This record gives sequence, structure tokens and C-alpha cells, in this order.
Amino acid sequence: MNNLFSNIPDDLPDELLETVLDTGSVRVERIVSHGHASPESFWYDQEQHEWVVVLTGAARLRFEDDDEFVEMGPGNYVNIPAHKRHRVEWTTPEEPTVWLAVHYG
Amino acid sequence: MNNLFSNIPDDLPDELLETVLDTGSVRVERIVSHGHASPESFWYDQEQHEWVVVLTGAARLRFEDDDEFVEMGPGNYVNIPAHKRHRVEWTTPEEPTVWLAVHYG
Repeated sequence: MNNLFSNIPDDLPDELLETVLDTGSVRVERIVSHGHASPESFWYDQEQHEWVVVLTGAARLRFEDDDEFVEMGPGNYVNIPAHKRHRVEWTTPEEPTVWLAVHYG
Repeated sequence: MNNLFSNIPDDLPDELLETVLDTGSVRVERIVSHGHASPESFWYDQEQHEWVVVLTGAARLRFEDDDEFVEMGPGNYVNIPAHKRHRVEWTTPEEPTVWLAVHYG
């Protein structure tokens, strides 16, 4: 894979996670969702910071501390500090949602 | 700017470079080209490694050592090691080319 929009299976029972760059200090990951959401009551609580952008599709993130919802469409990005608890509340079932995440720190 | 595809001026006399994340160890940059190319005989020779993806538009990179040309369209990415001399040979005049670059190491 040297194209973020290629090699997307038609059938995607689980989210697809692929590391495209890993330098030890920074890891760039492609994530493909298609109607997926985080499991009920599950919150990500990550050791690393994560800068993440939606490239195609649509998604809704939820942050626990202020119960904030963030709508994400193509080009929208957020920076999620380590241990800021969050979840993917929704991704569109209409098309694949391609994310690019930069994990660092 | 919290959307990589927004705030693109209609008139772009020079390439637009904006840092969207800078952690000291990693810097994420949006670059917008619109028909721009590197100056004649100019080669980038960078201290840091650069992972770079084209999100919209089209571009042609050139690498000095093997005189290799790389065509870039939406989603295509390359990893350019530090001091690997390269230049932007061409970007399409038809539409803005939006790049996302991760500088590291």
C-alpha cells in the first residue's frame, strides 16, 4: 500500500488499522471504518498523544471530560492529548471513513 | 484552520505552508501548491526525514540520485529520508494540490 485510498476491502467486518510509518518516536497509521463505532461504554485512554484527521467519510468523536461531541468530515482534524478519554460514537455507513492518525510523544 | 481543505486562497502566488502540529520531535505541515514547482536547478536537502502524502490534486516529485520521477495523486505517499535530494517538478494548474507532510527525526 502506497496509497491511503487503495486496498480498501468491500467487506469490512472490523476496522482496518495499518501502520504506514513507524520511527520509534512517531507512528503514522491509516484507519478505515465503515459504520463502525467504539463498543458500548468503551473509552480510549492512550499513552501517546494522537493527531488525527478524517480524509474521506464522516465520523463523530466523543470526549468524556466535558461530554463533548465533535463532528468530523473530510479534512477535519483534532489533536487528542494522551489520556484524554474519547470514543468513536459513529462513522457513516454510506462509505468508508479513512482516517490518518499521527501517534507521538 | 482545523480543516485541511478549507482556507485555501483563490489566488496563490506562492505555495502556502502552515504548521498544524509541532511537538519538537515531529512537525505536521499542510502545503498547498497550485501549479507551483521548485525553482530551476533547486533541490531540497533536508535535515529531517519527511513522510508526505498528496490529498488532492496531482504532483510530480523528482529524486536526484537515480533521477527518478514519482507521480503523486490523491492518497499517494512517499517517505523521503533526510538529505535525499529531491524537488517538486510539477503540480497541476487545474486545482490546488494539498499535501500533508510529517517531518521527523
